[in-house]
Amino acid sequence: MTYTLVLLRHGESEWNAKNLFTGWVDVPLSEKGVEEAARGGRLLAEAGILPDVVHTSLLRRAITTANLALDAADRHWIPVKRDWRLNERHYGALQGKDKKQTLAEFGEEQFMLWRRSYDVPPPAIELGSEFSQDTDPRYADAPVVQSECLKDVLVRALPYWEGSVVPDLQAGKTVLVAAHGNSLRAIIKHLDGIDDDAIAGLNVPTGIPLVYELDENLAPVVKGGRYLDADAAAAAIAAVANQGR
Amino acid sequence: MTYTLVLLRHGESEWNAKNLFTGWVDVPLSEKGVEEAARGGRLLAEAGILPDVVHTSLLRRAITTANLALDAADRHWIPVKRDWRLNERHYGALQGKDKKQTLAEFGEEQFMLWRRSYDVPPPAIELGSEFSQDTDPRYADAPVVQSECLKDVLVRALPYWEGSVVPDLQAGKTVLVAAHGNSLRAIIKHLDGIDDDAIAGLNVPTGIPLVYELDENLAPVVKGGRYLDADAAAAAIAAVANQGR
Repeated sequence: MTYTLVLLRHGESEWNAKNLFTGWVDVPLSEKGVEEAARGGRLLAEAGILPDVVHTSLLRRAITTANLALDAADRHWIPVKRDWRLNERHYGALQGKDKKQTLAEFGEEQFMLWRRSYDVPPPAIELGSEFSQDTDPRYADAPVVQSECLKDVLVRALPYWEGSVVPDLQAGKTVLVAAHGNSLRAIIKHLDGIDDDAIAGLNVPTGIPLVYELDENLAPVVKGGRYLDADAAAAAIAAVANQGR
Repeated sequence: MTYTLVLLRHGESEWNAKNLFTGWVDVPLSEKGVEEAARGGRLLAEAGILPDVVHTSLLRRAITTANLALDAADRHWIPVKRDWRLNERHYGALQGKDKKQTLAEFGEEQFMLWRRSYDVPPPAIELGSEFSQDTDPRYADAPVVQSECLKDVLVRALPYWEGSVVPDLQAGKTVLVAAHGNSLRAIIKHLDGIDDDAIAGLNVPTGIPLVYELDENLAPVVKGGRYLDADAAAAAIAAVANQGR
């Protein structure tokens, strides 16, 4: 008896395409992202991996990706659960800023520290400013978040993993988690037991389902899982690593 | 203290456009239907009526309508509940048949009886046939349905209304129900106390939010509610009444 988990990073968003730091800013998918989402659904259908329940963040790009992928896989009708704990990392004061410009302004070392360090968050965003979410009604029941490092994402994502995703897996359901680069890295770090330094090197490509078979202790049968289109995933991982250059 | 309920019939589907009996066949929205759904969401946003939770059927045209309308109203992130009890009326052996052709074949009287009588269902669909849903996994927990009259829809929809929609209203939530001509007629019949004969004359237009304020006994403050675009609703109601002609 194994459990089946599918992780799906949202397709390209309009701000991915513009090379801006996004975080919790609720931008839509680009046209390319819409295509990627539907293709992710077709890959699931072709593999015969049919989600019984979907978990998403509260952000449009993950929600739309789930909607389009599930529609393409003829699973649009399954139960839906959403939680802010699956959101992308909050990028603090960097939200809305150009990545190249930020790199030029602060230099390679600081830039990579903000992007890839495990426990150094970017500067806090000013409450009430354009790209802050402190008055957004969808976060009424969440703490006010002003910036996060990857460790912060783990700390808030794992309770949702344990409390909401694991029970669905243990009920024998094929679970789809449609979320973001960093909330998925948090889950993968936990599942694969990746250490705090090594996680910096892990990139999750957009729109390609990553399938984990988990044993009864929720340990991956194969470390790292498997992408449903391994070649496309390898190419995309290389591209993600070069973002901001 | 009043409760706010919004009823939304899905936008035009590909089979509405082709004038075929649809029922539980899971056809997508037409391009026009996609536009209607987004417009429905804009009407909600302009009116400041922001759903806190959405209930949909298990059919793609209602699910997509809810997704697009909520996205347009910036409420894509709210909790979602789905149930087969909100499905369109099962049209039995008529599913997949051309309305005009059916009218010509069976005559006006029989045609109108199937379309509009309260308690005469169309002939049962053959199990295992092309347009039957008896092996569809989404209905694994539902009874096998082979045909329904409007009364049958009421009998299966009202337990969902009472058990799932009413508790959300009583919790003070603005509730969106995205569903179908006949499942919405069933709810409206119940709310407005319309009798079995008069319900035949009630048509619900596609894509225009119908807002009910309900008092603490769940009785409409204004019978019939109000459409957020009253002129468009009146024009559309006239058009629906002429379907199949």
